[in-house]
Formats: sequence, C-alpha cells, structure tokens
Amino acid sequence: MMRTETFSFSIHATAGAARAGVFTTPHGAVETPAFMPVGTLATVKALDPRELHEAGARMLLANAYHLHLRPGEEIVAQMGGLHRFMGWDGPILTDSGGFQVFSLATLRTVTEEGVEFQSHVDGSRHIFTPESVMAIERALGADVIMQFDHVIPGQSDYATAREASERSVRWLERCERAFARDAGCGMRDATGSWGKDPASEAVPRPASRIPHPAQALFPIVQGGIHAELRREAALAIHDMGDWVGYGIGGLSVGEAKPEMYTMLEVVDGVLPTDRPRYLMGVGFPEDLIEGVRRGVDLFDCVAPTRMGRNGTAFTSEGRLNVRRAELRTDEQPLDRECDCATCARFSRAYIRHLFAADEMLGPRLLSLHNVHFLMTLMRTARDAIATGAFDAWSRAWLDRYHSRPVSVP
Amino acid sequence: MMRTETFSFSIHATAGAARAGVFTTPHGAVETPAFMPVGTLATVKALDPRELHEAGARMLLANAYHLHLRPGEEIVAQMGGLHRFMGWDGPILTDSGGFQVFSLATLRTVTEEGVEFQSHVDGSRHIFTPESVMAIERALGADVIMQFDHVIPGQSDYATAREASERSVRWLERCERAFARDAGCGMRDATGSWGKDPASEAVPRPASRIPHPAQALFPIVQGGIHAELRREAALAIHDMGDWVGYGIGGLSVGEAKPEMYTMLEVVDGVLPTDRPRYLMGVGFPEDLIEGVRRGVDLFDCVAPTRMGRNGTAFTSEGRLNVRRAELRTDEQPLDRECDCATCARFSRAYIRHLFAADEMLGPRLLSLHNVHFLMTLMRTARDAIATGAFDAWSRAWLDRYHSRPVSVP
Repeated sequence: MMRTETFSFSIHATAGAARAGVFTTPHGAVETPAFMPVGTLATVKALDPRELHEAGARMLLANAYHLHLRPGEEIVAQMGGLHRFMGWDGPILTDSGGFQVFSLATLRTVTEEGVEFQSHVDGSRHIFTPESVMAIERALGADVIMQFDHVIPGQSDYATAREASERSVRWLERCERAFARDAGCGMRDATGSWGKDPASEAVPRPASRIPHPAQALFPIVQGGIHAELRREAALAIHDMGDWVGYGIGGLSVGEAKPEMYTMLEVVDGVLPTDRPRYLMGVGFPEDLIEGVRRGVDLFDCVAPTRMGRNGTAFTSEGRLNVRRAELRTDEQPLDRECDCATCARFSRAYIRHLFAADEMLGPRLLSLHNVHFLMTLMRTARDAIATGAFDAWSRAWLDRYHSRPVSVP
Repeated sequence: MMRTETFSFSIHATAGAARAGVFTTPHGAVETPAFMPVGTLATVKALDPRELHEAGARMLLANAYHLHLRPGEEIVAQMGGLHRFMGWDGPILTDSGGFQVFSLATLRTVTEEGVEFQSHVDGSRHIFTPESVMAIERALGADVIMQFDHVIPGQSDYATAREASERSVRWLERCERAFARDAGCGMRDATGSWGKDPASEAVPRPASRIPHPAQALFPIVQGGIHAELRREAALAIHDMGDWVGYGIGGLSVGEAKPEMYTMLEVVDGVLPTDRPRYLMGVGFPEDLIEGVRRGVDLFDCVAPTRMGRNGTAFTSEGRLNVRRAELRTDEQPLDRECDCATCARFSRAYIRHLFAADEMLGPRLLSLHNVHFLMTLMRTARDAIATGAFDAWSRAWLDRYHSRPVSVP
C-alpha cells in the first residue's frame, strides 16, 4: 500500500491486471475502479451534487481551461476553492486544460514555452505554460491536478506523436518544479516522504485568500497509438520519481478501439502496479470494462451527461434513444435492472414526453440515470474482482450489451 | 366544515377575511393558504417532484390545453393518469386551457359552442368546447379540474367583459352537465350528498384503461375589472349549486393592482366563506399576501419558475437579479433568511457563475429557491393567521419587501 499524509492507494483484490482498490484523498476515499462524472465548469451539467452522491459518485472532475475563462481561478479561490464553490466536499480532480487548448480553442501557437490561444468563449488571447497552469490548478484547489500536456489527434503519425509525447514529458518536469516550489505532493522527496507539510516550509507563504490545500500532481502518459512511444513516455515519467498516481491521456480521441486497448496493455506493463491509473476521457460502458481489465482504476468522460442531454440512455441491453416513437406508451423504466432515482419513478413514456416537449427535467433524469449506470457498473466490476468472477462477468456483460436489442413494446 | 367522501375544507382560524384552513382531496391534504407550483406540461420546469415536496409544495398544477397538444390526454390516461405519469402522488389541479386558448393559440374563432383555434406548437386545428374540455380533464385525472371559460384581456370594456363573463357561466352549466354524466363531484346532488360513488352508478362504465378517479369541478368567477359583473358572476355561480371550491379568473392579466384587489373584495362578499377560493395565475409575493388578506386560499403562477430560469430571485428584501456583476464574489446565499436547499449550500457568486456560463443547474437552483420562498411565505401567513398576528405581520412584510434594497457587497 502506498501512503502519504494525505493520499494513499490500497489494492484489496486483483483479477489478472484488474484491481479493486481504495484511493484516499484529503477529501475522502474512492473505491476503485471508479468513474468520475465531469463538472467542466464546476457543475456536472444538469445535476445537483446531492443527486450525484446519491447516484454513487465519490469523485468529480472540473476543468482548468474552462474555469480559467469563466469565472476565473482567482474568483474560485476567493470563494474558498472549488469544493466550497460548487458544494462538493468529496474528492475533485482538475484536468489541466491541455485537451481543451488543443481541441476547443482557436488560432493556437505551440512553442516549447507553451501555447498561445484564443478563448472559444469570447476570442480573448491567453497563454498557457506548464507554470501558469500549475498556478491555475493550485488556485482552484482540487485534490488531484493534472500536468499540462500536449494533446494530438488520435490518428497522428509517429513523428507528430513523438514530438508531443516528448514535449509533454518536458512540460511535466516544469509542472513538477513549479508545483514543488509551492506545496508539492507529487513525488516522494529526497527524504523518502511524500509531499510537504505546509507548516515545515522554510519560505513563508504569501498572504493571500487563496487556499493551500494538499494536492497531488498526476503526470500524463502520452504517445498516441504508438506502442514504442507509450512505453518510452511511461518509462520516462516513472524514472522521474514516485508519483501519487498516473494519467493515461490521448486515447479515445478518434483511434480504433483495439488500438486503445493495446496502448493500455503497453502502459500497464510499465507503470507501477501500486499506484492508481486514470484513463482520461473514457466513459462508454464497454470501454470502462475493457479498461478495468487492463489495469485502469479511474475514468472520466462527459458521455453520460452529454448523451443524457441528447436523449440517449445507457441500459444493460445497449443504448436507448428515448425520442423513439415506440416509447410513447412504454410503461417500463429506462432499464428494468436499474434502481436509480429516475428508473424507480418514471416511465420511458414520460421521459419521451419530456424530451418531445423540450422540458429540462428530461435531460436531468436521463443524465442522472446514465451517471448512476456507470457507477453501478464500476461497483459491480469491483465486486466481481473481489469474488474472483471478473473475467466471466465482464465477458458476459459485454456480450449482452453488444448483442441484445433493447426491448421496446 | 364542508365535507364529501373525497373532498373537504375546514377553516381553523381567521383574521378578517383571511383564513387558515385545510383542503383535503383524494390525494391528500393541503394546508391553506397555499401556493401551487405550475407543471404546465406535467413537469414543474427544471424541478423534480422530490425537490418540490421537500420545498413544501403539496399541490401542483398542470394544464389541459398543453397536455392535450403534447402528449395528448389519451396517452396520459393510458399511462395511469397524471399522478402516475408525472410521479406526483399529491393533489393536482388542471386548468382547463381557457386562458391558453385565448392567449397562446392563434386564429381563434369563438362561438357559443366553443373555440376553434390553431395550436401554438404545430399550427394544427382544434376545437375546445365545455364538453370536450371536461373529457380531456377527466382523462388527465387531476383531483380538481377547472371549468372551460372565456378569458379576456384585463383592461377589457364593460360590454366585452359582460359577454365573456355571461358566456363563462353558460359554459359552466355545460361543463357541469358533461361532468355529472360521468362521475361528477362538483355539486351537491338532490339527496344532499357530494359527488357520486362510482360503485353505485346504475350504468356500468365503459371498459377502458382510462382511470375514473374522484374529481371536483371548480367554477371560475369572471367579470373583468367591473365590480357589478364580478358580483353577478359570483351570484350566478353560487345560485347554480354548492361547489367544492371556486376559481377566481381573469385577474393579474394587465389590470392595475388596486383593481385586482377591489375585485377580490367584491367576490369575497358573495362566495360562501366555507369553501376554498383559488385565485388563478397570481404568484408574486406581494399579491399572495394581498390575496390572503382578501379571503383567497389557493394560488398558482409560473412566476417563481419563470423568473428562476431568467435569473431573478425572490428575497425577503425584494427581487434580486443574480446576473449582476456585483455578485461575482458575493459569498452570501440568495436570501440570508432562507433555509432552502439552494441557500443552504450555494453562494450568490456560484449561482451568478452558473447563469453566466449558461449551466442548467442555475435555473434549477433558482427555481427551487423561488418556489420554496413562496411556500415559506404562505406557511408564515398561515401561522400569523392562527396566532392573530396576520394584520401586523403582513403590513410589516410588505413594507420591507417594497422599501429595502437588496444588500450586495
């Protein structure tokens, strides 16, 4: 078991590369494997923190790029940090915004120093460097903060992927230096202990309303769909020190699924087994199971809430488009096997009506169901790992999800 | 105390014309005075039935016009009726759609028979008559159903108001006949008992999936802003029989507030004091208090949810626009005196951010606060009536609401 004063990860059972563990943070513990709902702008779209907790969510995501633009990290810090601002006292992870800078922003200029870009909101100009992103993520105050990385399209060629991956490693070194200057908890220090006790620091902190919570910096393994680059990136990061946890980025961005699974296997072989691994931006049910099978502990994705807003439900028999005309008088819940607050009370007919009438309760109920669905899936996977049934269970689950049509009247 | 097998109204305390009572329906009791949130399309916009109950709501509204167009009353009936469809097992009232036919629909042709109009949704042609509206409201299955009436603009002249008011009385007679043919519970019958026991009916019901719940038909007093017409309408309705309760319509539709208050006083002098009075479409805090003072027991309005979606909060110090720049770093709740689920957890700064970022949680939290605000206001009014403090309390409340600016940093 890895332990620090504030972060720890313990593995309670394994099944091949799959693991059932507990990731402990300053704001509480998360049983893994776990899915983290995405609250890009300090709110998981359409959902209330109370509902998220009831649905089984224990750790949420927020995004440094989006929060830098609106409302600005200094406002969040002044309001007591992200946890207090958004009314969530469980663990939070902030993504660095690397993905957003390379996907949402326009007129990018990438140099070794950083990225200059125009905001997708108002066209204003911004520069993100490893150092400035660390300052943003420090101010937001999440438990886990991700390094600033260079993200490329999923099908990028070897040279492009190599350049971005190697730059991401160099940016990680700069992130770590910037982070360590403040209150790093990213790597084991020379004395062998994790992080720093703020009280022990020689240099007094500047007087400020910005909170200084204990945080862990996660590196991100890049390398595109090139096994050699993934292995090199994982080794380079591993050689830099003993991190609290590891991100795996640049997947589920357009590449074929088997390529993603291969990359996970490569990385699983290099990263230390006693640290949590977080597969970024992956959240379809089948990908969660394939990821868990390959040693991933944490996932995040906008899929459950985005699909919920668009009228698509995850069910144990596959996806269901709730706008379908056949559902007009369908008295069934979205998924007969689901015990979420939506399925316990409302019919497919009612939810179809809400979407047809463009009523806000529709996206709410569907987002809640989809999040609950992934929570339940991960809890079931965890139980299966613990009881030794994971391999059979996961194969049966995927067979059913892929092959059975959703039953409608 | 008025009592039927399924409906009753008891008055526990009075203060001048104001009354504290309990209105009992087949789906439960409502302490009055009470505000009923509006779920036009079988959902109170942005809110979940669980939240509404937690906020103190006990009786909801839905709308026959809107539900006839989407999803259609036959679908709602087939899904078990409105209560089951929308997941609310408390009392429900349906408005007849009179107001909507005359305000939303286009190309209206009004005859003594009824109204032909085009749907505001898709332009399809429909005809509403007293008989067809009763059939729609029977199929929806709310506890209280309103008569189909002829609604006119608030400033209409005497001749126009007289025509519409007298027509509304004639349409009430047709509503009552149509309703009584089925399972009327509107008026005391010749034997002096209320409503009908479905099991005792000589003619067996047609086999159908349409439920036949106990319902009460409420008449609607019209008459514009003309005291003579209001008095005549109230007398005519009163002379028709002994209704479970009485609607007061056609107010808060553009007339001056003193005119509305005068009309309430006129009607209060004619309607029986031992029946609940429902002032339709009125929901601003000051109007609720003025209405209670003049003998009104039930209110409804889209104001709390519509204003909530638009970024305006009711507070004990007046209305607050949450988009104001001054709120960017305002750590206060919307209303320091409020104990709703929004104010207990979130700052004005966070809610402002949600609106600035166009996040769905903003309208949710603000709608919830506004509904809770009116619920609390009515409960406080009820307590003040019971303790004899209503007159002083209501004057002090209105003075403060009207005169104090909302404090911002």
